[in-house]
This record gives sequence, C-alpha cells and structure tokens, in this order.
Amino acid sequence: MAAPVILVDPLPRTLEQIMTPAVRARLESLGRLVISEARPMHDDEIEALLPHAVAIIGQTAMPRERLGRAPQLKAIINVETNFLPNIDYAACQARGVWVLTPASAFAAPVAEAALGLALDLGRGISAADRAFRAGSETYGLEANLDTIRFEGAPVGIIGFGDLGRKFRELIRPFRNEVRVYDPWLPAEIIERLDCRQSDLDTLLERSRFVVVFAAPTTENAHFLGAPQFALMQKGSAFLLMSRAAVVDFQAMIAAARSGHIRVATDVFPVEPVPADDPVRATPNMVFSAHRTGGTRDALFEIGSMAVADLELILKGLPPQLCRRADPAIASRLRSQPVSKT
Amino acid sequence: MAAPVILVDPLPRTLEQIMTPAVRARLESLGRLVISEARPMHDDEIEALLPHAVAIIGQTAMPRERLGRAPQLKAIINVETNFLPNIDYAACQARGVWVLTPASAFAAPVAEAALGLALDLGRGISAADRAFRAGSETYGLEANLDTIRFEGAPVGIIGFGDLGRKFRELIRPFRNEVRVYDPWLPAEIIERLDCRQSDLDTLLERSRFVVVFAAPTTENAHFLGAPQFALMQKGSAFLLMSRAAVVDFQAMIAAARSGHIRVATDVFPVEPVPADDPVRATPNMVFSAHRTGGTRDALFEIGSMAVADLELILKGLPPQLCRRADPAIASRLRSQPVSKT
Amino acid sequence: MAAPVILVDPLPRTLEQIMTPAVRARLESLGRLVISEARPMHDDEIEALLPHAVAIIGQTAMPRERLGRAPQLKAIINVETNFLPNIDYAACQARGVWVLTPASAFAAPVAEAALGLALDLGRGISAADRAFRAGSETYGLEANLDTIRFEGAPVGIIGFGDLGRKFRELIRPFRNEVRVYDPWLPAEIIERLDCRQSDLDTLLERSRFVVVFAAPTTENAHFLGAPQFALMQKGSAFLLMSRAAVVDFQAMIAAARSGHIRVATDVFPVEPVPADDPVRATPNMVFSAHRTGGTRDALFEIGSMAVADLELILKGLPPQLCRRADPAIASRLRSQPVSKT
Amino acid sequence: MAAPVILVDPLPRTLEQIMTPAVRARLESLGRLVISEARPMHDDEIEALLPHAVAIIGQTAMPRERLGRAPQLKAIINVETNFLPNIDYAACQARGVWVLTPASAFAAPVAEAALGLALDLGRGISAADRAFRAGSETYGLEANLDTIRFEGAPVGIIGFGDLGRKFRELIRPFRNEVRVYDPWLPAEIIERLDCRQSDLDTLLERSRFVVVFAAPTTENAHFLGAPQFALMQKGSAFLLMSRAAVVDFQAMIAAARSGHIRVATDVFPVEPVPADDPVRATPNMVFSAHRTGGTRDALFEIGSMAVADLELILKGLPPQLCRRADPAIASRLRSQPVSKT
Repeated sequence: MAAPVILVDPLPRTLEQIMTPAVRARLESLGRLVISEARPMHDDEIEALLPHAVAIIGQTAMPRERLGRAPQLKAIINVETNFLPNIDYAACQARGVWVLTPASAFAAPVAEAALGLALDLGRGISAADRAFRAGSETYGLEANLDTIRFEGAPVGIIGFGDLGRKFRELIRPFRNEVRVYDPWLPAEIIERLDCRQSDLDTLLERSRFVVVFAAPTTENAHFLGAPQFALMQKGSAFLLMSRAAVVDFQAMIAAARSGHIRVATDVFPVEPVPADDPVRATPNMVFSAHRTGGTRDALFEIGSMAVADLELILKGLPPQLCRRADPAIASRLRSQPVSKT
Repeated sequence: MAAPVILVDPLPRTLEQIMTPAVRARLESLGRLVISEARPMHDDEIEALLPHAVAIIGQTAMPRERLGRAPQLKAIINVETNFLPNIDYAACQARGVWVLTPASAFAAPVAEAALGLALDLGRGISAADRAFRAGSETYGLEANLDTIRFEGAPVGIIGFGDLGRKFRELIRPFRNEVRVYDPWLPAEIIERLDCRQSDLDTLLERSRFVVVFAAPTTENAHFLGAPQFALMQKGSAFLLMSRAAVVDFQAMIAAARSGHIRVATDVFPVEPVPADDPVRATPNMVFSAHRTGGTRDALFEIGSMAVADLELILKGLPPQLCRRADPAIASRLRSQPVSKT
Repeated sequence: MAAPVILVDPLPRTLEQIMTPAVRARLESLGRLVISEARPMHDDEIEALLPHAVAIIGQTAMPRERLGRAPQLKAIINVETNFLPNIDYAACQARGVWVLTPASAFAAPVAEAALGLALDLGRGISAADRAFRAGSETYGLEANLDTIRFEGAPVGIIGFGDLGRKFRELIRPFRNEVRVYDPWLPAEIIERLDCRQSDLDTLLERSRFVVVFAAPTTENAHFLGAPQFALMQKGSAFLLMSRAAVVDFQAMIAAARSGHIRVATDVFPVEPVPADDPVRATPNMVFSAHRTGGTRDALFEIGSMAVADLELILKGLPPQLCRRADPAIASRLRSQPVSKT
Repeated sequence: MAAPVILVDPLPRTLEQIMTPAVRARLESLGRLVISEARPMHDDEIEALLPHAVAIIGQTAMPRERLGRAPQLKAIINVETNFLPNIDYAACQARGVWVLTPASAFAAPVAEAALGLALDLGRGISAADRAFRAGSETYGLEANLDTIRFEGAPVGIIGFGDLGRKFRELIRPFRNEVRVYDPWLPAEIIERLDCRQSDLDTLLERSRFVVVFAAPTTENAHFLGAPQFALMQKGSAFLLMSRAAVVDFQAMIAAARSGHIRVATDVFPVEPVPADDPVRATPNMVFSAHRTGGTRDALFEIGSMAVADLELILKGLPPQLCRRADPAIASRLRSQPVSKT
C-alpha cells in the first residue's frame, strides 16, 4: 500500500517561512510530503496524488470532482489564512473533510501593534519624536495639551474575532470601558470578555479609541465613512487594522487632515502605496505599511497550528487550533489571495 | 479660637493645575486656606501663620526652629513630588508631623508611555511612520526584519518603586519573564509581583527590553554606562524613563548610533535640549521631551491624593496614598526642584 | 406558506427549567413552538412536523430517513447536554444541519464547586466543622497539622474541556503550577492557559490537588485506579467531578479510607446511593450528591445558549456558544441519558 | 567593641515555629542572637543587653526609660503580630526606632479559608456532606434550592486591610460587584482595587456574601448586631474572620438559628469554646475553631518578613514588608496577647 501523501502547495508562502525545523519534522512524520514551492502545483501532479492524499497544506483548488478522486482526504489547510472560493466547501462538509485555516496566527502580533499604535495616537509618541528631531518640541504639561490617556478611556472594538479578542485581553490592565460592534456575534460572547455589545453609532459616539478589526465581507464594504467619522468626538483616535475595503479611505484621510480625529492605519486601498500619493503627508496620522501581522513568529505560528491540528485529525480527533470553514461564512468573506502577509 | 489654617505654597504648581473644583472644595472644608501662588510665600507671612497652621501644602522650608513655632502642625505635603532638603525630617518625625508627597501620581502616565515607547522600539512604529512619510517604506515580512515582539520577550525593570510596579501591572497580558534590579528592595516584594530579583549584569544580558525607572540617589549617578550597554544583546531596547543622571548619556547615545541597541528616552541632561544638539539626529532612537508624566490627569492626581490624605490625618488616621518621607531615604535622594513636571 | 416550526421535545428538562421568560420570548419570536413536555414527543407528531421544522430543541431521535423528511431543518439542539446515539451525525453534517449542545452551561457551577471542594480538602473545612459540632475540635496551629494550602500548591487537571478550563481560570489568583492531562488536546491549547501538558503519571506524582473533569469515553473506563492512586503523594487531594465510570470507585474509596489520599466526589456508580452503602462512613472524604452542576443558573444558561445560537443560525450565521457534534467525537463519548443534571 | 546584639523574646512563638533554617541563618548573620524561649526574657537580662541591642524580635516591654538605655536600637519587631501597649510608640518614633509587625503574614491563609467558607455557605458543601453521611442527601436541582452561586454575587467586605485586600484579589475571577466598608480608608484605595466604597447599611442590604475582616478597635466593639443582621437579605451569608469582639455574637447565632442568614465563624468570644456550649448545634452555620490563620506557612512568613525588613533597616533602608506602628493607630487597636495564632 502506498504511504499516505501530504500535498504541500503553500505559495505565496514557503514551508521554510512557516515552519521551524522542529515543526517540519513533526509534519514529515505524518506522511510523505510532496511539495511545490517554486510554482503552484500543476494539475497533473495534483491528479496523480489525489488517490493517496490524506491532507493538503496549501491553497490548491478543490472543486467537487477532485474531492471525489481523493477518497482518503481528511483535511485541507489553507496557510494563506484566507478561505478562497476555489474549494467546494459544502462537498467537503458532506464528506467530512476538514477545511481549516490558522487564521488566528496573526492575532497576537496585530493586537500588540494595535496597542502600540493606540498609545502612539493617545500619547503623541511618533509626533513628539518628529517634533524633537525637527527642533520644535515642547516639554511637560505644554507637550500634553492633546494627550488622551489610554488608561480608563472608552474603547470601541469593531469586529470581535481572534484579533479583537486578543486586543481586548492585552488592554485589560488599562481598565477601559469597552464597547464591541460585531453583527455576527451574540451578546453572550461579548459580555464574557467584560465588554458591552453596542450598535455602531453609539460605539463611535462614546469611544475615544475606535479600533477596526472587521474582515471585509460581501455586506460591509465602506461601512465606515464620512457620516461615521462625524459621529466621533473631536480628537478621538481611529485605528484601521483589517482591510482598507471596510472604510471610505478618502473620508478617513479627510477626517484626519481636518484635525477632527487622529488616525492610524496598517492598510491601504492599493499596496504598495504609489510613491507620489499625497496621503503620505497627512497630519494627525500614524502610517504602518501593512506590517503589523507579518512577523516571523506569526508565520511560524501558521505552521505549528496547521501541524498540531493535522496530528489530531489523523488520530481521528477534531482540530483545536485552526478556524473551520463554515460554508455559509466562507462564501460571505471577500478575502483575496495575498501577496504579502 | 482662630480657625485652623492650611498654608498653600505650591509653586511651581498652582492649585488650579493640581485640583479639580470638587477636590478643591474638599480642601476648603478642612480649614482656612492661605494661598501664595504668584510667588513663594514670604517668610513673614509664614511666620504669622505658623501658630495656627495645621497643614502645609507646598514646598515651604521647614527647619527645626520653624517647627517649634507651629505647635498644631500635623502634615507637610510636597506637591512637587520631590523631597527637598529644606525640611528637618528628623524633627518632623520626632514631632509626629507627617511629611508626605503624592509621588505615585505620575506612575500611571509614565508607565503607560513606557509601554507605548517599548512597543514603538520593538515594532518600529515611529520609524516605519517616518519611512512611509519619506516614501521609503517596506511592507509585510520585509518590514519586520528587525521586529522584536514585546509579547513573551524577556523584560528587565531597573528601579521598582511606584513606576516600575505600575509598568509591571500594565504588561501582565504580554506574559514576559520580568527581572527586577532594585537594591533597596527585598526579594519578597519583587516575587509577589511575579518577577525575579536579579543583579544588574544578568538583567542587562538577558532582557530584550530594559526599562529604567530608578530615581537618582547619592549613590547611583551614571551607573548605566558603556560597560552596561555592552552587556545588552544586539538590537535590544533600552528605555530611560526617570532622570538623565542615572546614565552616562553620551554612552547611551553612542550605543544607539552604532546600532548596538535601540533607545527611547524621556529625559535629557539639559532641558530644554539645545536647538543644535546633534543628539536630535541619532538613529535607532525615539525621543520624548520630558513629557510622559506631565499629563493633566497626573497633576489632578497630585491634588486628590494630597487632600484625601489630609482628610485622614485631620481625623487622627494615618495617610494612605502619599509617600512618607523616611529621613534616611529623603537624605539619599538627589531630587532637584522641578521647573516642568 | 406554513410558519416555520420549532419542535421542542426537552425531557427530562422542561422549558420553564431552562428558560427565563425573557429568553423564552426570544425563542417564540423565531418560529411557532410545538412543545411536548409531559412525555417525549410521539412519532406521529414528529412526522407531521418534520416538513415545516427549522429547528429541534430536545433529544428527539433523528435517524437518516427522518432527516430526509425535514428539508428545512437547520439545527438540532440537545438540551440534556449529552450527544446521544439516536442521531445520524454524519448525515446531519452532510446536510449542513447543525447538531449542538450547550455543554458548557455547567462549567461555571461545577468549576466553582470544585474550588470549594478543593479548599475544603486542603483546609479541612467540613471535617473541622464536624469536629466542632462533636466537641472534639482543636485550635490554631494544632488544628492545621494536615493543612495543605491551596495557594501555590501543584495542581493537576485531568480533562481540559470547558470545565477544566473554567476551573483553571478560577484558580489563577492562587498562582499554582498547573499540569494538564488531556489526550485529545495539543500542547498549544494547554500552554495558552499557562498550564503544562503532562502525561498522567507525572501529573499524579507531582500534584497536591488532582481534579478530574474527564468525560467518559469508549476508551477511558476506570483509567484511574489503585495503581494511579498509589502514585499520588501521601495526603494529597483527589476530586472526582465528572462521572464515576472514569475511576475504579472502590479503589478510590479504599485510598481515602486508608488515609493515603483525601477525596471529594460529586458522582457515584449508582445514584441515588443505596441507603446502607458503607461508603457513607468513609473518613478523609467530602461527599456531594451529584449536585455541583444542577444549579438554577446553569439550567437557564442552557436555554439562553440554545436560543442565542438558534438566532444566529436562522440568520445564516454560525453558532457561537454551543458545542458542535463532531461525528468522530460523538461516537466516542459514552454519555447516557441523564435523569438528574 | 561588643558585637551588635539581637534580642529575641518571641513567646508565645518560638524561633523554630517562625523561621525556616535558611531564614534563621540570615538572621544570625545580622548580629549575635540572645534568645529567651522557655520564658519571657527577665528584666535583668534585658537591661544587660540594652546597651548593645540593635534590634528586638519579640514582645519585650519598651517604655521610654528603656529606650533611653538602648542607644543603638533601630528596630522592634513584634512577632505576635499585635501592637501591644507595652511600648512607648511616640518615643520610638521620635528616636527613629522602627516598630514593626509582620501583620500581613496571616492574610494569605485567612483569605484562602474565607473563600473556602464562602463557597461552603453558598454551595452548601459541608451541609451536603453531613446529609450524605446521615443518609438524607438530595440530588441535582433538588439539592440546590438554597444554593447561592458565588460567581457574580454581590460581595461586601468589612475591613479592608491586608486580609480584605488579599481576599479581594482571590475572588477576582468570580467577577463580583464588591462593596467595601472601612472608615479608615479613602475611596481611592478602595477604587484602585475595583471595589466601591460603601456605608455599612448599604453594604449589608446589597451583599449576598458579607465578610468581616475588621480588627477590633476602641470604637467598633459589637458594631455588627441584631439591627445589622436584620438589614441582610434572607439567606445571605455572613463570615466572621477577624475577632468576636466586633460582633454581637449571640445576635449572630440567633440570626443563623432562625434561618435568616447563614454564618461561618472562625472566632468565638471565649476560646476554647466550652464543651457544653449550645452554639455547637446551631444550624445554618459552619464552624472553624480559630484555625484559618495558624498554618505553618503563615508562621514562617512572620519570620521571613521580620528578617527581610531587619536586613534593610541595618543597611539604613526603610522596611518594606512589615506594618509600621503609627502611634495614633497603635493606641486605638484593642489587640490582646494571643495564646493561639
């Protein structure tokens, strides 16, 4: 009998990026790895492997007919951390094939950076550094006229998945009143983490720090625009940590430029941002070039979550770490293949 | 009988800076306030008030002979938050006059800013913002080659008074191994807060983030210099949050300039820093112009701590919020009158 | 078109037991309730409702053929909190019918009681009360010769599902070293909660308090018996919080009677325990008559979790609160219909 | 010059009780120990040692005239953990002699036991064990008719010194609303620990668990009596953890006997309690024979706190662990010499 095959088709990632040697060794002990890293795996290779494949690690297309030719397949683990439309999710569910992604791998570094950016906006850290380098600094109380202390300030979290919840845990010592807006969640989940379920408008009106972790869906494009920014208190902080598609980006820039709010963003409508984009000179902003998630440890976390769950699945146990693709949800997410992070 | 007098001599602060109207009203209910805010109170005014004074709020000199002329005096509360050498501490202790200062008022804003600066150094926040504004940003993993994730990194705290302890509480969710160096404390105090007592060299060698909160004393001038920076791992972060006198400032700048460590500082040997000081162009640094403590809420905290403790003292109860001047310690601190914060 | 039907077949529970009026009102707004509480719903009633049923709240049998006759069915929510073998789990999965149970409803009261029982065993609370009532008490240090302080003691948790994790959260302030044995979980899950993954023998040898939350499965009957108790340190505490089937009950009693360990149990091989069972006189034990989970708030939690998840499902969103029946797992659990709790 | 002498006069404790060998070795390195453990040190011995004594560990009387004959004395550390009236506190303060007691040594074991007793009262643990042993147990929901879940229940803490604060920390995971009554403290201290300052009546009316840690003073004898118990909600829990003198003990017993409240007590007006005291048969109570504090680890904590502070004092640093005798407070406490704990 042929050894069980693990089909590894991880582009745009590579195994070296996402697995430490120790984790890779654990993977190798689970089956024979067939890896395509220089280019996406060719269809004929895939077809030849399907009869023996127990798992796919990567973004290989898996329409219904291919599933039929992979009778031993037990798991498909997307290591890009997006659920793509190239899989027949319903057929996988019907067959009992786990479709997973280690989506929470980025939660810790993004949440940490979000707190760093929030403290920067509140305490004026990068602006004060720029002023000092320019010789225009002020000192002491005079330098704190616009300071918002993060401790105790009302915080609003928009989107309360892995990232939002991790952020919530990081800020516990600051004893904020935390409102959460997430239309996919019941109040119970929110209250268990000592937050208050809120509608969007109230959250915007009451929070001094608004942090957006909401993933783009078929329903929420540009749901944060000029009317929403207008609801925020003057001088409050707005942090965009997820994807540019959920905001009206130009309205956000305008709200910062006018001084109505201060803004930090990790994402942009087009990346890389054009060299001459006038956004680069916007005051009252902190810019982060889509870099809060892409840390070495986050990439390794992808690999270790994938392997730990595959170990469980091959023992007949349910996975514990990756997110499962609920067909209804997968079809509502508007993720696109990533080139970076 | 004359009403009890509270002598208020708060310069360089003013009552308006340090007390909200509600707190001031509480103070006024405790006695007749005699206030000198335009200039330090004159000696003849002081002498006239001594027989009736139950409390002094301010930095009035109180040598032994004056104490003898103030038989009703129960408390002296320094609102600059330094213990100055213009008081006979031993005589106050012998007389049972409380000498207090609300020193911990700055702990919360300084600790919050220290975390913001630590996240900035670790995640490259202000440097990435500068790069973006200059059009030289990188994205994703490429932008994280020098990243040190704060979560889980070994942290060293030098000086474990109010500030160090508050910082320790703020970073709990990051689950760092925390070493503490503080020669004035027993191991028990350090271990109760889930930290490890450490000698200085081990702390410097092992920590990826070293945060200095140590107050200057007669014994610790420049105790952190080139040999100490050399012990730190390449690329580690050093944060100076207390006073410039505890470090060899030029050695610290040199260590940043060479790229050996990254540095954030809130203090400088001379403040304001001369306009042409070449320090302003140092790479691998984040500059904060002595501004982490001087927030509005910290100043109001000074007032509310002072009044709450005075309320207790005038009821015959011991104070609970301010620091007490231990004569032995007061004489070892090298605090100077402040002009800012 | 007929209104959507929610088939309610909750015995041995009743809706009144598991839903506050407010929660029941939310359920009623989701569809037309057809309720059978006096007896399990008859087959002919069920058949008549299947074409219109969108959800089943209860323990109704759902073999494959019935599923075929319920084309609108979206959810089956077991409110006994066991997954029973009367459902074709694979067919439900293939159809995309959620099979759920609010299993974690009991986690909070059981974990709270487990801590109460652990403190009782460690500090001798009920034994000291009995001694006092009998006039044979001792005082002070003499009364603490057998005391084990819970704070700081090594703790072992066997079974790290909802109950074990809730217990772990409750004991955080006691700063225990916590070992976890759970063969269904990867180390990552355990370490995220600041515990150490352990094999069973090491856990038993090192822990001063061993708490069993493991559910009975086809594989773990009596896995804790005389050899395992013998591994425990003399005088250590053993708490059985899940089901009697996972231990060799007589060996456990013998280990308590001999004084080798102290034991608390909430479960018994036969319940109610026969009146003349000699177990009732065993020393070094604390007895709880299967009562740690059956609190009013736990039962209401069942209802509110069920309704909150049903609200999400009927909006096309995935459930967030109940446990999902993974077919592989459901077939390995040896749960039986409950009469109590 | 004679070696510095440490006068050790610890009865009713012994050095062996309060110091591990390692701690005792640290003490011996600080000076020449002169120990009297078989009996209190005789006056002539004391007089002979005074000229050389740098520290006293024990309860030796120190009136003003003796202080005058002990010119090198720097610290008096009471290891009974009461401030007794046999010391001239004002003279010590005037001389700069530290008078200390490691009062918080008992905080951890008492707070732990208080939580155990609270869970016992709320969940009926010892009563259920008694019922089971008597063959009269009930099961499941029926056994929980009187249950008060501790999690989320309003809690009132009376007396917010070391014990009350430690208890507050232990119950954090239970997410109670906590009211505190302590007339010696400002609101700030209470609010920093996420509690609400309360008057006594409101606390009694609103709390489901009332825990008394208040030390007896010249002002609070019997301040909790029949009118106060009447304010409590029916079925609520009252725990007396400090001293019998602060309650009207007979009223407390009556309130339990009538079923109005449930009560746990660790202290009694006369100890040992007479054999035939009818209190022993009171229902709705849990009895603890003054045993919550007297654990081995608490006694060792006394020694290690005393030695750690003495080390600091002899280096010219202020103590960090023991409580300082404020003359005003010492004279208001009504502590008596202890025979036990």
